[in-house]
Amino acid sequence: MEKRIKMIFDLASEPLDAIVLINDVEPNLDIGFFYATGVEAGLFENCAAILFPDGRVDLVVTALEETSAQGTRAEIKVIERKGDRERLIKESLRSVKRVGVNGAGLTYRKLQDLRSMADVEVVDVWRAIEAAKQIKDQREIGHIRKACQIASKVGAEIPSFIEEGMTEYQAAAEIGYRMQKLGASAPSFPTNASFGANAAEPHHLPGADELRKGQFVLFDYGALYKRYCSDVTRTFVFRKATQRQRDMYEVVAEAQRVGIEAMREGVSGKEVDAVARQVIDSSPFKGLFIHSLGHALGLAVHDGGRMSPESDLILKENMVITVEPGVYVRGEGGVRIEDDVLVTKTGCELLTTAPREFRVI
Amino acid sequence: MEKRIKMIFDLASEPLDAIVLINDVEPNLDIGFFYATGVEAGLFENCAAILFPDGRVDLVVTALEETSAQGTRAEIKVIERKGDRERLIKESLRSVKRVGVNGAGLTYRKLQDLRSMADVEVVDVWRAIEAAKQIKDQREIGHIRKACQIASKVGAEIPSFIEEGMTEYQAAAEIGYRMQKLGASAPSFPTNASFGANAAEPHHLPGADELRKGQFVLFDYGALYKRYCSDVTRTFVFRKATQRQRDMYEVVAEAQRVGIEAMREGVSGKEVDAVARQVIDSSPFKGLFIHSLGHALGLAVHDGGRMSPESDLILKENMVITVEPGVYVRGEGGVRIEDDVLVTKTGCELLTTAPREFRVI
Repeated sequence: MEKRIKMIFDLASEPLDAIVLINDVEPNLDIGFFYATGVEAGLFENCAAILFPDGRVDLVVTALEETSAQGTRAEIKVIERKGDRERLIKESLRSVKRVGVNGAGLTYRKLQDLRSMADVEVVDVWRAIEAAKQIKDQREIGHIRKACQIASKVGAEIPSFIEEGMTEYQAAAEIGYRMQKLGASAPSFPTNASFGANAAEPHHLPGADELRKGQFVLFDYGALYKRYCSDVTRTFVFRKATQRQRDMYEVVAEAQRVGIEAMREGVSGKEVDAVARQVIDSSPFKGLFIHSLGHALGLAVHDGGRMSPESDLILKENMVITVEPGVYVRGEGGVRIEDDVLVTKTGCELLTTAPREFRVI
Repeated sequence: MEKRIKMIFDLASEPLDAIVLINDVEPNLDIGFFYATGVEAGLFENCAAILFPDGRVDLVVTALEETSAQGTRAEIKVIERKGDRERLIKESLRSVKRVGVNGAGLTYRKLQDLRSMADVEVVDVWRAIEAAKQIKDQREIGHIRKACQIASKVGAEIPSFIEEGMTEYQAAAEIGYRMQKLGASAPSFPTNASFGANAAEPHHLPGADELRKGQFVLFDYGALYKRYCSDVTRTFVFRKATQRQRDMYEVVAEAQRVGIEAMREGVSGKEVDAVARQVIDSSPFKGLFIHSLGHALGLAVHDGGRMSPESDLILKENMVITVEPGVYVRGEGGVRIEDDVLVTKTGCELLTTAPREFRVI
């Protein structure tokens, strides 16, 4: 915790007396709060963490979250009655003049609250927090590795439970069930199960459509383990595939292969995106890869930083990033293959290992 | 959609040329965006909705979300290349001088983006958006009703699948599985399964603890249906209960009963909280009810507005609110009973119907 906090101040590279992280109510919680404090359970709505340059942290929490806060090395201050929140935050900011905030996780109204509480100069240091979060420590890598193992095991089981006539939400239910039985505290996001033409919508939510022969079967899902996420996509064809479906799959698989091959410390996200995108754009599916190649993964599924044509991300050792090329044809279907990758000095390590070759199931 | 937008402008009760809702990346999405646009699928990261007083809406979306946006009556503007986002938002704000934002859902950095894009006066109208969202229309009530039916059905099934030695995450997996098979697109939040002393931590995440005779078994869970949430808690005792466990349960059940009885249009959330809290505070469990009595429910689990000692919420017809008193004893366990309630002119309707009497399972 101390190390993470010092890293944030280092990366902010301007003098700050403190950094204040304030959660609003869900879903508008500040991922930076969970990163800096390391709390592994609890919701922490309307709670605040005040970080100091020497690595100390004051945690102002509601009584509801006191038990969840115990596991940290923070100084815990419990809000017991009306006015305590303001009083306790003020107390922590007593001799503070310049305060950093996380503009990527702080709501506008909580910023206004902070300004009304303390006469401080506010500096947005979201870039420093994002950069710190991108480099995972061993504890974080351990949690992500476990989340990836769970998702991989379930990915390998998919062909065993897919049946004609099953609905998308039945299929999604199987995925969640199997992940949780393996120790996931929850899915890391609502499981996407897409059959047939629905696979053309990258963020489709499962519905009552029933699986028929010849359809694409796409699952995008992940496990949550001690707040850390995995994020995997596997696409199959059910019972009987056309040549076009095979071609579509092979182009996406090849794009992923060359993307992963290009990854190592020092390479830019833009370059990796470009080599993968080039494979698709020199195929009959040109222009149909309509999103980034990948995103950082950690406490959030989209944890800040992408590999995309406009990205300024430079890969560094111990970053965890998804690699997920896709092709989408409206009215027909789509293919996406997504794995989670740990960047190393000389290359990268695939953390997700479910089979990824073309398969009719 | 048009009606919802007009209601927001009415409630804002100051002259505004437009309201701009901008999503950051998950989890920092603006629930107001989903309320005003009515989109039922899609993630819409970095997308914007510009609302106008006549009920029109411009939807600036990435190509990734174009399909998901089709279902709405909005004018859809697709971001195709770098600079499009800024250009399209600017275009929508052409003759706009005073713009409302949702301070409860807008991140500080997205506010700064907006300010750098357009020379407009910014007014925070989160209270108007929250107040509009609180009064559910028939479409919303239909979705919540369905989410509640799913959770109720699964709640009634809990005694059938609980076994000695099962882990919290196995139990949580069963809940999610059964909800999704009944048509939930996902759990509305990570299922809380707490055994024994873990039930004393209101936001406990399931772990590997195994169920033993005599323990409390607490489930806090809900279904997501077309983006709308249910939120239910049921507590049981496994195999053999002590008198103290029974007493604890009966006090909480009585607090819930009197709370629900007090609910109707015109009553304040503070009053309802007080009558329920009074039951607990005049029992041996005085002071151990450490959170609000309930919260508004809708597109978010905590949808804005609470029944608590400090609440200024006045109940109105067609609000949906949880009623969830609890008692927590550290090291021993806890009881919470939570149901979802639709406020009517003369009382309220329980939307969740799983049995709630004391039960040894």
